[in-house]
Amino acid sequence: MLTEIITIGDEILIGQIVDTNSAYISKQLNQIGVQVYQITSIQDERQHILNALEDAKKRVDLVIVTGGLGPTKDDITKETFCEYFEDTLVENVEVLQNIKEIFAKYIKQEPLPANLKQAMVPSKAEVLQNPNGTAPGIWMEKDNTVFISMPGVPYEMKHILTKEVFPRIIKKYNRPHIYHKTLLTYGLGESAVAERIEDWENKLPKDIKLAYLPSLGRVRLRLSSKGKDKKALQKAVDEQMEKLNTLLEDIAVGFENETSIVERVASLLLQKKQTLSLAESCTGGSVVKEITAVPGASTYLRGSIVPYETSQKVSVLGVSQELIDKHTVVSAPVAEAMATQVAKLFKTDYAVATTGIAGPTKGDAIDEVGTVFIAIASPKGVVSQKFSFGNNRERVIIKATNKAFEMLLKEILKN
Amino acid sequence: MLTEIITIGDEILIGQIVDTNSAYISKQLNQIGVQVYQITSIQDERQHILNALEDAKKRVDLVIVTGGLGPTKDDITKETFCEYFEDTLVENVEVLQNIKEIFAKYIKQEPLPANLKQAMVPSKAEVLQNPNGTAPGIWMEKDNTVFISMPGVPYEMKHILTKEVFPRIIKKYNRPHIYHKTLLTYGLGESAVAERIEDWENKLPKDIKLAYLPSLGRVRLRLSSKGKDKKALQKAVDEQMEKLNTLLEDIAVGFENETSIVERVASLLLQKKQTLSLAESCTGGSVVKEITAVPGASTYLRGSIVPYETSQKVSVLGVSQELIDKHTVVSAPVAEAMATQVAKLFKTDYAVATTGIAGPTKGDAIDEVGTVFIAIASPKGVVSQKFSFGNNRERVIIKATNKAFEMLLKEILKN
Repeated sequence: MLTEIITIGDEILIGQIVDTNSAYISKQLNQIGVQVYQITSIQDERQHILNALEDAKKRVDLVIVTGGLGPTKDDITKETFCEYFEDTLVENVEVLQNIKEIFAKYIKQEPLPANLKQAMVPSKAEVLQNPNGTAPGIWMEKDNTVFISMPGVPYEMKHILTKEVFPRIIKKYNRPHIYHKTLLTYGLGESAVAERIEDWENKLPKDIKLAYLPSLGRVRLRLSSKGKDKKALQKAVDEQMEKLNTLLEDIAVGFENETSIVERVASLLLQKKQTLSLAESCTGGSVVKEITAVPGASTYLRGSIVPYETSQKVSVLGVSQELIDKHTVVSAPVAEAMATQVAKLFKTDYAVATTGIAGPTKGDAIDEVGTVFIAIASPKGVVSQKFSFGNNRERVIIKATNKAFEMLLKEILKN
Repeated sequence: MLTEIITIGDEILIGQIVDTNSAYISKQLNQIGVQVYQITSIQDERQHILNALEDAKKRVDLVIVTGGLGPTKDDITKETFCEYFEDTLVENVEVLQNIKEIFAKYIKQEPLPANLKQAMVPSKAEVLQNPNGTAPGIWMEKDNTVFISMPGVPYEMKHILTKEVFPRIIKKYNRPHIYHKTLLTYGLGESAVAERIEDWENKLPKDIKLAYLPSLGRVRLRLSSKGKDKKALQKAVDEQMEKLNTLLEDIAVGFENETSIVERVASLLLQKKQTLSLAESCTGGSVVKEITAVPGASTYLRGSIVPYETSQKVSVLGVSQELIDKHTVVSAPVAEAMATQVAKLFKTDYAVATTGIAGPTKGDAIDEVGTVFIAIASPKGVVSQKFSFGNNRERVIIKATNKAFEMLLKEILKN
């Protein structure tokens, strides 16, 4: 059973927004054994939509369309569905009721005619209720292919997908189980990893697929398989993953599937009832941003300082000016002092500190652009490491942020 | 002249990564008058790639493919291009030289056989050099359609696109000018905006297209047009935008096209030689992250504190415990005190402070989830505002961050 996602909107094709809906839908569908064969982004244009629907019908069993359902004139998905299915629009009482309730509760005004028009749906459609917005989803069928249309607003789409679409898919289709597992490695290039695991890769069973995902100092290795017997499937992939993990023991830092490195740090700190503070200079808030994106961060994150100027490292953090004069501000002793001081200031078990030259210019630094020192203070003391992350500002910040989490995790696991 | 972007990679179709390359390429192409008709994401699978190339050839003049050019076995784009063009691979001396240089300079090892194999390119291809990586881009033609293949690694792709692809496109095709301008509005829903501007919209010239882009408390209104005469085109759109801006005067906050609100804040502070500090509670580093993403932030950003725990607001920021006891921690007086205190601590002209309940739970707060107070300290004093941003944690943080920049900009413009 194959699926195609079609996202409609000129804003995608002129690069004004990044289409994140498709990745979300794909990931969720995989969880219930539905494979996405293709993702297609098209314009808000009648003939283009008609062509895309017809092309998708030839390729797949299920077509999921998002976008173009708003109340304004540039939204034409519903009318075009009507044309494709040779149907007409009729008023749906439940949708009308929902629209009125939303306006009464949140907007505290009478709905406008354009809003009420959103209660019009194709007569042959099954309606997928959208309690978070005024545009309903619809489910229609043609020549054994199912077509679903949902609004493009992410949180409306997510609710309809989970609550309305999934139960219907599970009821209608026999689906295999799909299982992915991804190993995270740091420090070795894609081809060097490939060479190390060549013998193992050659012996990999045909129904297990290996993918290499290189990015910014790390390579992720994904094994994927699908089949009817969920347990046997997982066992086969887990066994291969175990072998792979052993082969790459020195560079593997864990699996991606279950939890990100940030979530692992979070769950360990919560479990151990320990606390964390941050002093981020060159990463400029990038580490704290990742941490506070995970709910519950307030339980273990006591505080964070971005001492962007050298003088702040002295006046706010209390790093000694002598130490900075002696070693320069981008140095191991200063990184370590920053970590120790911020841990003291916020009274925390752990602290992360970064100091470096993100670029594009060196400022008054002695080291090259891309030089970063990261220090971790823990109940056992303080450790630091020096890195050279190249001369691209964005990449330096991302790499330093990744590395900071990697070092922090290592220290937490030690204690 | 129409273009299709094809991104190859199972990681996109299982939702493991979000395809950001397509948005980048689309935006850049628009700048040189090239319209993207469709974006298609497909699997690392021979027949699927062949089908996608053939389908795209029927639709467009230029096909830009990214991904599947790595040195490992799961990368099959180059071989499939060879099959599609009935071609064979030959070694390219310049690419070989580049691979050897990259290994000598950055990896400080001899290239592996898999790396050297990346110097093999289809014999009919024009090579697009990639100084940032080992996989070259290629340019091939079939039945008057141009096919370009580039690596999927964003910073490698971006360099090839700008330095190798664009000069060739500009030389080969007559392109119109494409012009977009987007007005940002806050505080009114999509359909209410549409009703306000209905008369104007009905009179809009046929060659100017209006799009509504609603998201998180704001509606963006984009006007797009294309044509041969660049000046006339811009004049026509700018005139309509001027009318629109006047109609929506009370809710419009500026244009999106030129610079983001963060860049505007940055350039104003740089120009006025003024400084900024931050005390972010409920936004948890989201504001500082946006600021430090813009190069040059170190010139005006003196520091930032994320006082996630109430006690830190007292011990680190120096907000008085009495004030918190009297008004609760999520209140206008506390937000204002946070802004004043952090400005004092870091000796800055401006300070932004946020305090609120991002959710998902209320903790010991009295107010509802989504309640946020934002305060801005300026040389003229301190102002604050109360907001209700709903009960979705992610949305609360994004809305509060947007609003903080909006309020900060307003204060900077006043002074």
